[in-house]
Amino acid sequence: MRTSWVPGSEDPESDFPLGNLPYGVFSEAGGAPRCGVAIGSMVLDLAGVEEAGLFGDSTPLGFSEGALNRFMETGPQSWARVRDRLKELLAADGSPDLRDNSALRDRLLFPLDQVQMYLPIVVRGYTDFYAGRQHAFNSGSILRGPKNALTPNWPHMPIAYNGRTSTVVVSGTPVRRPLGQTKPAGSEMPLFGPSKRLDIEVEFGAVVGLGTELGQTLTVEEAWERIFGFVLLNDWSARDIQRWEGQPLGPFQAKAFATSISPWVVTRAALEPLRCAGPERDQPLLPYLQEPANYFFDVTIDAHLTPSGGKASRIVRTNTRHLYYSAPQLLTHHAIGGCRMQSGDLLGSGTISGPDKGSFGCLMEQTWGGRDEVTLENGGTRNFLEDGDTVTFSGWGEVDGRRIGFGTCEGKILPALERIGLGH
Amino acid sequence: MRTSWVPGSEDPESDFPLGNLPYGVFSEAGGAPRCGVAIGSMVLDLAGVEEAGLFGDSTPLGFSEGALNRFMETGPQSWARVRDRLKELLAADGSPDLRDNSALRDRLLFPLDQVQMYLPIVVRGYTDFYAGRQHAFNSGSILRGPKNALTPNWPHMPIAYNGRTSTVVVSGTPVRRPLGQTKPAGSEMPLFGPSKRLDIEVEFGAVVGLGTELGQTLTVEEAWERIFGFVLLNDWSARDIQRWEGQPLGPFQAKAFATSISPWVVTRAALEPLRCAGPERDQPLLPYLQEPANYFFDVTIDAHLTPSGGKASRIVRTNTRHLYYSAPQLLTHHAIGGCRMQSGDLLGSGTISGPDKGSFGCLMEQTWGGRDEVTLENGGTRNFLEDGDTVTFSGWGEVDGRRIGFGTCEGKILPALERIGLGH
Repeated sequence: MRTSWVPGSEDPESDFPLGNLPYGVFSEAGGAPRCGVAIGSMVLDLAGVEEAGLFGDSTPLGFSEGALNRFMETGPQSWARVRDRLKELLAADGSPDLRDNSALRDRLLFPLDQVQMYLPIVVRGYTDFYAGRQHAFNSGSILRGPKNALTPNWPHMPIAYNGRTSTVVVSGTPVRRPLGQTKPAGSEMPLFGPSKRLDIEVEFGAVVGLGTELGQTLTVEEAWERIFGFVLLNDWSARDIQRWEGQPLGPFQAKAFATSISPWVVTRAALEPLRCAGPERDQPLLPYLQEPANYFFDVTIDAHLTPSGGKASRIVRTNTRHLYYSAPQLLTHHAIGGCRMQSGDLLGSGTISGPDKGSFGCLMEQTWGGRDEVTLENGGTRNFLEDGDTVTFSGWGEVDGRRIGFGTCEGKILPALERIGLGH
Repeated sequence: MRTSWVPGSEDPESDFPLGNLPYGVFSEAGGAPRCGVAIGSMVLDLAGVEEAGLFGDSTPLGFSEGALNRFMETGPQSWARVRDRLKELLAADGSPDLRDNSALRDRLLFPLDQVQMYLPIVVRGYTDFYAGRQHAFNSGSILRGPKNALTPNWPHMPIAYNGRTSTVVVSGTPVRRPLGQTKPAGSEMPLFGPSKRLDIEVEFGAVVGLGTELGQTLTVEEAWERIFGFVLLNDWSARDIQRWEGQPLGPFQAKAFATSISPWVVTRAALEPLRCAGPERDQPLLPYLQEPANYFFDVTIDAHLTPSGGKASRIVRTNTRHLYYSAPQLLTHHAIGGCRMQSGDLLGSGTISGPDKGSFGCLMEQTWGGRDEVTLENGGTRNFLEDGDTVTFSGWGEVDGRRIGFGTCEGKILPALERIGLGH
């Protein structure tokens, strides 16, 4: 395995060895947001690399933009070319162009802990799927009982709803407890106020790199080629609002206040060694959804909860291989009806739950609808989130003893707004 | 009532008298898309008016952009100032600056039938509500029977789902019959193929002119001030796909292939004389949704169906006063949970149905789930749309014997794509 000369890249705890090279958008103090790649404990300024001519005389790559969309639109061959070149520039046994040019190194490498990170993409559309079988079964059981847990359509296609792009935020952005209507058991009229059942959802987000024309359809294989990479995604959910508003048109306000994603997009290429077989199918899928290869990944995702001033407790450990539908299946199904897909579309997997309780990807499942409690390290308990709680996702796969990691996806719960001027 | 010197503006059939002045985006042959205002049978080039300094030394109004968003972001006071100035420039008894300058008139006025129209706004978010009581009752009755027609939440808040912004198209764009999964009665497995139950939905679309910050809430009165105007909206729907996919997360592919809007945004100011009282409430609304004034409009909307090579038949005549929730109520509810709203957000009212069959705003209701037939002028019938059918919405209110009109919102059905490469 090749190694890198960049500080921190050989630390076995690092998420960002030479084999990873995830893309994000950063700025250093006083600088403008631009694209970068994480390596070891540093971020490499890709706008600077492009400006210095180190990518050769290729067409413009758009790295000086404050989002990856322009680069993603250059397409899969360009993605591969840039990745190869970055490996050469960063490998200990690679090109001297950057490695041996200390002035350039000083100008283009910044310590990760000294930069600000931004949303890596302009999110064009955000779709939240429901592609985890155990989660669909668990939440269906809690709401409708185990006999009717899975709706009849579920084994035949990835079920989804359109989420709200305007409230997709980057890790670190605080999350304000939402106001909304709820109707508690026993109450004759609905109430208006802060949600009392604030929850997380551990998800894997696929980033569409290349879109489609209006009416263009994609095979699963073609869809795979258009996926640029993946992020960790927390689909914050207000369960009491969701319960009351959800029929007949699905979740709306319960999911609209915030969706957090990790700042680093780990590319499909970096995850290649982690590909694994999909699930056994309940029933054969229709031909348009059948997969010619393995499109699932062995990626572990942990969620930790840290009370205000307290200690972090791991509350979830799950794995993306528990999903039932793969990312290219989501994209194929999405495009098949004539929906135009765009570079920067974000496809959430839906909550990822494994077979055992510790792997259930949200508090609603872990506490079985709020009935049970989750115990924290310091002895505290939770049914749902409290103000001041911080939830942190981390994700990684292991390749040759090294982590191909996603960094973290984190948010802290702020108390609900005072309802000034709303007639209360 | 003031009159205008512009050709066609005194024709009583015209949608665009001096009292209207709707905004759109147009280009003449070889020109770039820019903002314009419709008056009589002409469009006035607002980029040219701005460039010629006829708005005075105000801050830039963004009329040379290919969308109204920049202008909308200048806010309600600016909207009022520009409207006043346009009235002066276009009134027979107004300013001579344009009226008496033939060179400028020739450069800035184009015949409506010789320009191309575009989407008037960059659609930031598209939300489709379900704010018509008769429609909710009818469609609930068809699906669940009259006893369970309205879900318990319906009388308490505007129910909605997020639609797909990427497939909002301007009037005139053809609509391709979507492919998708359906499960016809009696079939054990779902089928894949073209939708057989393609439908329209007659809706009124509100355009949000000024957004909110993340977490900012709005009273109904504040929401009213932020609405820039309204368009006709056809929420094309594939009923068979919707039926099969719709549980538990709501419509997705059934609505994602196209949503058509009229090219002209009729402003809130133009509709001011058409304001009317809202409906009687089944139950009092929670305080945050209560209205301090009348926010409904007396606007008639017709839908005509024209078979390929055939004659137009009116299939719907309805009125926006049949809605149960007003546009500012939709916006208030949308923002109340912390969802960030943006300039260019489009809020569909949901299908507008009146009390009698001819006013039901979609074929599903008119044919009661496909059971009955709609008879066309030439003796043909329809349960749902056929390939080659053109559906045309028109909408207007009457003020002092003149129409304040929306022009048309039209689309022609193209046959479904061949399913090449999809394993069929």
